[in-house]
Parts: sequence; structure tokens; C-alpha cells
Amino acid sequence: MADIFKDALTQAQSQITEQVNLRLTGDDALHAAMRYAIVGGKMLRGFLVLESARLHGVAPQAALNAALAIECVHAYSLVHDDLPCMDDDDLRRGQPTVHKKWDEAMAVLAGDSLQGFAFELLADPANGPHALTLIKGLAQSAGKDGMVSGQMLDIAAETATTPLTLEQITKLQSRKTGCLIEWSTIAGAVLAGDDPAPLRRYATALGLAFQIADDILDIEGDAAKVGKALRKDDAAGKATFVSLLGLDTAKARAAELVTEACAALKPYGDDAQCLKDAARFVISRDS
Amino acid sequence: MADIFKDALTQAQSQITEQVNLRLTGDDALHAAMRYAIVGGKMLRGFLVLESARLHGVAPQAALNAALAIECVHAYSLVHDDLPCMDDDDLRRGQPTVHKKWDEAMAVLAGDSLQGFAFELLADPANGPHALTLIKGLAQSAGKDGMVSGQMLDIAAETATTPLTLEQITKLQSRKTGCLIEWSTIAGAVLAGDDPAPLRRYATALGLAFQIADDILDIEGDAAKVGKALRKDDAAGKATFVSLLGLDTAKARAAELVTEACAALKPYGDDAQCLKDAARFVISRDS
Repeated sequence: MADIFKDALTQAQSQITEQVNLRLTGDDALHAAMRYAIVGGKMLRGFLVLESARLHGVAPQAALNAALAIECVHAYSLVHDDLPCMDDDDLRRGQPTVHKKWDEAMAVLAGDSLQGFAFELLADPANGPHALTLIKGLAQSAGKDGMVSGQMLDIAAETATTPLTLEQITKLQSRKTGCLIEWSTIAGAVLAGDDPAPLRRYATALGLAFQIADDILDIEGDAAKVGKALRKDDAAGKATFVSLLGLDTAKARAAELVTEACAALKPYGDDAQCLKDAARFVISRDS
Repeated sequence: MADIFKDALTQAQSQITEQVNLRLTGDDALHAAMRYAIVGGKMLRGFLVLESARLHGVAPQAALNAALAIECVHAYSLVHDDLPCMDDDDLRRGQPTVHKKWDEAMAVLAGDSLQGFAFELLADPANGPHALTLIKGLAQSAGKDGMVSGQMLDIAAETATTPLTLEQITKLQSRKTGCLIEWSTIAGAVLAGDDPAPLRRYATALGLAFQIADDILDIEGDAAKVGKALRKDDAAGKATFVSLLGLDTAKARAAELVTEACAALKPYGDDAQCLKDAARFVISRDS
């Protein structure tokens, strides 16, 4: 992992955590659960927002609003996904999941209010004249034809009689994780009113590489480092990129996608070094 | 129930249902569950949006977007509230709740995507230059300091050792139901960029009257007409407006609030007849 990306990610984590502490100040259990769900995450999506905003000269407060918003949506999706009626996970980032630390009702409500808070942040007048485009994009990327529909497909896959094909897995993953990665990556261009096409090409390749890497990590990873239960897909007989392609081909495909992602950044020249490093990190991470 | 309100409510229900069928067309189970959760409701909040929009000359598509949006948020809150880990209700409007008709995972995801879809509707460029104000207002009214926090207070009240005071119940209810009623009622003024103060005064009184009437209905109502289990609060020993004030005083207070609500509409003259009738309906309804 190159230092330029490592430093930028650490800085993003610290800036976003600062925003959490500034803007989610309520002293009740609901606010505590919301903060708990966000803080401690990798904040890769928030980093992508901040980096994209930097490349397009977006004002700092608008960039931070969008970065915190996407981390709220990501956190809400994890909190609900971990529920007993969904993936039923007790651990997340090595800590008890929200419904284990509090209870299921709190997990439902903390997730609900994290989603609402994301839109509150995006409706801040400081975000400028393109905020509405960004809001519509987030609602679509996270909603019934985006992330939530990806989760539906994922649940359906668990009870399907035949494993998914490569095409079906690719569609599922592009909805479940790809849509929000794309939104994060183009956010800066959208807020600035610039053309988001190059960043979108980068994000499409990055999102798929990310998911292939996740499947590899599920097989090769160390549960203590990853901070959650591993090899659940394999145990459940679920198709993954690794089960369909084999480990070596999956790794080669992920590397190919990273090359594609980096090539898409050509219009940004040297300014895009950090995003290129981020793409390389995505397939080499151990958590 | 005066005919002018009855006709307007029927028309609102039919217009909003038409929007559901036009805009939630997906043929998967997720879309089906979303439609099921909205259609068949009273749509009082959607009616309030349309009536407020009429009084302020808002363009029809913008009004319908906001009306469907609030019904999506209301439906999402009911679907999540009915979950086993929350109120654990099997019936809603005389029909199986979403987690009974499908399953709990579907109820979580349908609720999540209904919330997201509400913001997608509000981010429609057809909503004009004040859409961002309306989005921020909805996020706040529905979120961690609005509806969701009201639900948290409600859950806490169930396990509290001493029943809530009148002041605490009033705060709980103003958050749990009052905030969204207020948002609905002022939506037309906000979209038009007009002063929402008179409609806000009407909504505050209406929201409280609505909740007192709900508590009365829980005691005096016919479960078959109401379409859900009744007398659960009483059985659980939960404080309500009726348990704190007594039935007669609760009815008198609700009537007083309706008078207050109608008085707030003075600036609208005869144009506000329908909203006045709506306020009277709220305390005389049997479902």
C-alpha cells in the first residue's frame, strides 16, 4: 500500500470521525448507536468522496457533508444486513454488531435514522446548486433498484436451487456494492457540475475489483484481521467470483480491473495518483 | 364527516395510488411489498400535502411527488414498527403485515427502500427551487430527532418502571406522529416559497388531536373497523392521553385542539374549508 493513499485514507477517517462528533452529538442511546455504527469503519467510500471533491475543487464543507452521508448509508446497510433475519452476524470490525451491543429494535431504528441523516446532510445549503442531483443519485444507488435490490438478490441466492452464474453474480454485486462506490467516486464531479464520466469508468472497474477481492479475502483472509466471520459463503454453498472463476483467475481478473480503473483516470494526470494507489490497495488489503 | 373533505380524501387516495402504479412498476417481490405497504392506507398525510399545495398554487406533479413521498415514509415506519422486534403486529388495515405476508428480511428491506424512494421523489427537478428545503425538513422530521426518536421513546416507555407524565407523552407523540403531520401540512407553502406559519399552527394542534383520538379509538374502537389489534397499550399498562386525562377530558381536549387548528386557518378564509373538515374528521373517525 503506497503511502500517498495510506496517508489520505487516514486523513479521511480522521476528518469524517470529526464530523460525526460535531454533527451527531445527541446524548441518547440512538445517537450513540449511530456513532458506533460509523466510527471504526475503513471509510473507503468517504475517502473516495473527499478525493473526488479535491480533484474537482469542491468546497470543504460540501465535500465533508457528502463523505459523512455515504458513510451513514454504508453503516445503515451493514447494521440492517447484520440483523438475525438477514445475515445474522454477531461481529463487525471485531466488535459486537449493533443488535448484539443493544438490541434488534435499536438496530432497526439506528439504521433507519442513519439513512435519514444522510439525506439531511446532502440537503445542506452549503452543498451548492448541484445538491439535488447528488441526492437523487444517492436515493437511486442505495434504493430499490440499487443497493437494496442487490441485498434482495443476495438473499434469494441463498435459497436458490442452482448457484448463480457469473453474469448474475456480477449484476448482484454491481447493485449491492458497486452503486454506492460509483456514487462516492463521482460525487466531487457532480457537486462541481463537471463531467463525471472518467470517474464513473474508474468506479465501475474498482467496484467489481473490490468485490472479487472480498471473495478472495473470504477464502484466504484471517478472521481476526478482517474482524468478521469468514468462509460463510463457502459453507452455505453460495456461488462467488472465486467459486466460479477459481482463485488464480479471480486474482488475475481483479488485477486486470485495477489496470482498467487506473487507465480511466488519464484525464486527471498526476493528480490521480492517490486514486490509482487506492485501486491497488483494494485488491491487496487484508481486512 | 363533511362531504367536501370526504371527496377530497377519496380523490387524494386515488391520485396517490395512481402515482404508486406509475412510479413503482418493478415486477420483483421487493416492489410488490413496497406497493402493498402504501396502497390501502388512509393517506391522510398525502391528502394534507395535496390540500396545502392547492392552497399555495403548487404545480400538480410537484404536489404529487411530495404526497407520494410522505406516504412512502409513513408506510416504511409502519412496516418497521410492525416487526417482531418492535411492536410485533400481525395485522395492519385488516391485512397481514409485510413480515407476515413475506418475511422479516423483506419487511426490513421494503421499509429501507420506501425511505430511499421518498427522497428520490423529492429530488425530482419538477419540484422546483424549494425542493432542498422540503428534503431537509423531511429528513429532520422523520429522523433521529423526529419520528425515529419518538419510536425510541415509545419503546423505552414500555419497559419504564413509572408511567410517562402528560408532558412526556406529549413530547413522544409530537415526535412520533406530529413531525410528519406538520411536514405534510406545510409542504405546499414550502414548495411555493410562502410563509408556512399558519399551516404549522394548524398542524401542531391537528397532530396532537390526532394522537388523542388514536388513544380514544384504542379504548372505544372496533378492531374489525380499525383493522389492527386494539387495547394493547391498556394491557401493557402504558400511559396514554386517555389513561392520564380520563376519557371525557381527553375528548374535550381533542375538540378544543380542533377549534384551535381551525382558528389558525383564518388567513386562508373560505379556501380552508376542506382542512377544517379534515380536523373535525380526525377526532370523529372510527378507523
